[in-house]
Amino acid sequence: MMDIEQFRKAGYEAIDRICDFYYRLEQKNVVADVEPGYLQNLLPAQAPEDGEDFKIIADEYQRLIVPGLTLWQHPSFFAYFPTACTFEGMLADLYASSACNPGFNWICSPACTELEVVVCDWAAKLLGLDKAFWNESKTGGGVIQTTASDSVLVATVAARSRYIRANPDADLSKLVIYVSSQTHSAGAKAALILGLTNRILDVTLDDNLALRGSTLRAALEEDMAAGKHPFILIATVGTTSTGAIDKLPEIFEVANDFPSLWVHIDAAWAGLSLVCPENRELCYLDRINKSATSFCTNFHKWGLTNFDCSVLWVRNRIDLTEALDITPTFLRSKHGDAGTVIDYRNWHLGLGRRFRSLKLWFVLRSYGVRGFQSYIRKGINLNRKFASLVRSSSEIALVTQPSLALSVFHVNAPMDAQDSISAQNSLTTAVYESLSARKDIQLTQTSVQGLTCIRFAVGAARTEERHIEKAFAIILEETKSAIRVFKMKGAP
Amino acid sequence: MMDIEQFRKAGYEAIDRICDFYYRLEQKNVVADVEPGYLQNLLPAQAPEDGEDFKIIADEYQRLIVPGLTLWQHPSFFAYFPTACTFEGMLADLYASSACNPGFNWICSPACTELEVVVCDWAAKLLGLDKAFWNESKTGGGVIQTTASDSVLVATVAARSRYIRANPDADLSKLVIYVSSQTHSAGAKAALILGLTNRILDVTLDDNLALRGSTLRAALEEDMAAGKHPFILIATVGTTSTGAIDKLPEIFEVANDFPSLWVHIDAAWAGLSLVCPENRELCYLDRINKSATSFCTNFHKWGLTNFDCSVLWVRNRIDLTEALDITPTFLRSKHGDAGTVIDYRNWHLGLGRRFRSLKLWFVLRSYGVRGFQSYIRKGINLNRKFASLVRSSSEIALVTQPSLALSVFHVNAPMDAQDSISAQNSLTTAVYESLSARKDIQLTQTSVQGLTCIRFAVGAARTEERHIEKAFAIILEETKSAIRVFKMKGAP
Repeated sequence: MMDIEQFRKAGYEAIDRICDFYYRLEQKNVVADVEPGYLQNLLPAQAPEDGEDFKIIADEYQRLIVPGLTLWQHPSFFAYFPTACTFEGMLADLYASSACNPGFNWICSPACTELEVVVCDWAAKLLGLDKAFWNESKTGGGVIQTTASDSVLVATVAARSRYIRANPDADLSKLVIYVSSQTHSAGAKAALILGLTNRILDVTLDDNLALRGSTLRAALEEDMAAGKHPFILIATVGTTSTGAIDKLPEIFEVANDFPSLWVHIDAAWAGLSLVCPENRELCYLDRINKSATSFCTNFHKWGLTNFDCSVLWVRNRIDLTEALDITPTFLRSKHGDAGTVIDYRNWHLGLGRRFRSLKLWFVLRSYGVRGFQSYIRKGINLNRKFASLVRSSSEIALVTQPSLALSVFHVNAPMDAQDSISAQNSLTTAVYESLSARKDIQLTQTSVQGLTCIRFAVGAARTEERHIEKAFAIILEETKSAIRVFKMKGAP
Repeated sequence: MMDIEQFRKAGYEAIDRICDFYYRLEQKNVVADVEPGYLQNLLPAQAPEDGEDFKIIADEYQRLIVPGLTLWQHPSFFAYFPTACTFEGMLADLYASSACNPGFNWICSPACTELEVVVCDWAAKLLGLDKAFWNESKTGGGVIQTTASDSVLVATVAARSRYIRANPDADLSKLVIYVSSQTHSAGAKAALILGLTNRILDVTLDDNLALRGSTLRAALEEDMAAGKHPFILIATVGTTSTGAIDKLPEIFEVANDFPSLWVHIDAAWAGLSLVCPENRELCYLDRINKSATSFCTNFHKWGLTNFDCSVLWVRNRIDLTEALDITPTFLRSKHGDAGTVIDYRNWHLGLGRRFRSLKLWFVLRSYGVRGFQSYIRKGINLNRKFASLVRSSSEIALVTQPSLALSVFHVNAPMDAQDSISAQNSLTTAVYESLSARKDIQLTQTSVQGLTCIRFAVGAARTEERHIEKAFAIILEETKSAIRVFKMKGAP
């Protein structure tokens, strides 16, 4: 029950606290040093009967919540993928929250729709996406979803709808979603949610875990001969596990022969690398521009925009609206009926939507194209540094080619190990457990064709070369220690 | 590319601008006075090459974006349902944005998960929900979704999964979702997304548009005899169109005979009225507590919490995790494996999630139970005032019983009109068009069993009795004017 002047005071204080938080960021632990249930034990079991003073609330945020945060913005955060946020994004979130509205159609708050239309085009141009995907084209277009999982689900729903319209007699129980064994779990989750089958296409370490056209073709031919209906392929540019990039030239050559197959490109993380022209060939931008049905990248990952901000572009916006448009009387509006405006509620799963375009607008303007490029290049260069340190060591080795700002490594087995893969895996697990027990650094594990691995993902906005060197030193120290134990005990 | 001190300066300024915005709120128009495309014409077609000074960006927010906002917090906003936000919610959004992380599992940021576990219980207790729905119960629990559409979709996916596990031989093409003709479009959208059939159950104006148990029973018997599989009913407490409350005692009596039917209660708006004990009988809280499979209400509607914050409670959390759990290696964690923590990613559709519990915590603490109750009572009393004004007029009339803080009215036909329903509808449409053309008030239309109606929804936090009186005067003025035109021309 705060009035305007109390808000001013509490607002200034919040800004000051956030400044302090960022001044001290590097001195803090990356990982929250709390045990499960820590907070339940500190909070009462129900809301207070009478309202409390905001000073107490803000103090308790500081005292009880902040110590339980894992610091994704910490320069020594190398886990998962970055969620690089910026002060510009925070201010946009604040402004957007003050203009609180559910933005489900144009009249509901015109600026929210219109800014999204504009910034999705700005973002498309920043990445070099073809005009076909711009809102300006009036046929394709971009829309901000919450996460890449959401984008995958929307693309799959739209693809299914398009397929059924074209093949009204198809047996719906025989629809199949194609993913590779490296596709993000969002693919499997979309299948689970929609009650559809997904077929996992194999990849090999020889191909650096990229999906090949020949694998796709064989599956399509086999499934279609069996009366099945593969209707979407979720291809990936930059897989979560190792940053693998599916072989899009081959894939689109095959897809060309199967025009009813929707090809969604999930570039949740690596899509941002397209900001720099030098990465476009690697990511097959030309082929995406020519042939992808939909494309998604998360500005909240490697794009400096505060979570959540996943941009989904489609070549044909009608594929979304045909699949998702429900217009009851209470949602009808003059401009919506006239078709002169985009009603974004028909471009996503829910109805209401947050004013997410504001943060993307603030960030794109404050950084500019060059600022974005420097940030992306810095991440890639820091990962090159890390990879060269790994290559220089005899204790650990890269498992796959470093991909943009991600490296995947494991521990080398001692020369005299009998079962070298088993020894490697045991040692890598031991090192990962030691690293996980530390609070001053965070990495995540993965599994690659039976090999236990550790991922090293660069991208937090404040990471510098010295953090890479320190991280490598820590990894090496833990590795040497695990090898000593291994040699003493036989196995960790 | 803002540094910490630049952020402090821009942050203070943002707080000041928001203060100004709220000081001037009432003097502004409710509805944005812009035409489609206004913003595209004012903005460049691409992001700048070099970063811009934040001062310019913030000024343009003020100059270009703010005039394009429809002011849902304006005291004369009576459209849709309220999206009542608070300064406490804004500050929480700011803090949450500064702690930016995708919170998909416990270790990812323990405080985010743990606070959600706690505040969902606080919210359940505030509403009087039974212990079965509390996270404390370890069997049921609450989770924050984005919107009620999202909650409906999650409940439907979980219900389908539960049904298929219990009936593995069921023909999936014969699954049916039950909604009433008054259910929110989220029900139809869930069916569209999931590729399932929905059956629309009839209601009558005599029953004040509430779904009856007898209608449900007849449909169940008919469908099951025909080999169909109705697996979920989306029942509503407080429909969007008129605030109708389905007859839950009858519905649960029927459901008792069909234990495989999941009954989801969508109380997106009216659920908040449960904060006040005097509304609990009306909303059948006892029956919900005894029998509902899941229950949802949106704290971002009538609950003072900034959009988005839809809380979904389920009686059996395993229904969610069985339907939605995907755990690849890179998402495994010690505590998740041990089952000692909730991994909320398995309780919703996506993977990443925003730190939404913080705003609910701030708001619940700052208002306390009593503050919440006063706010809800004020809305209901203001709507009573409006309804009594309508009843006192001869020009307009209520179409249904006023429901909590919502009234639905239409224009009375002149005594001498030949076809009174057609005259009523024409007149109501004319009045609605006049009201829509005004910028100083906003209402929305609906259609009730062939009757064109106008909705009047109270709930913006700053609405006082004088705004109700002013709104009524405007409505009456526009109605009299439409009647004059009608009498002159025969029909508008």
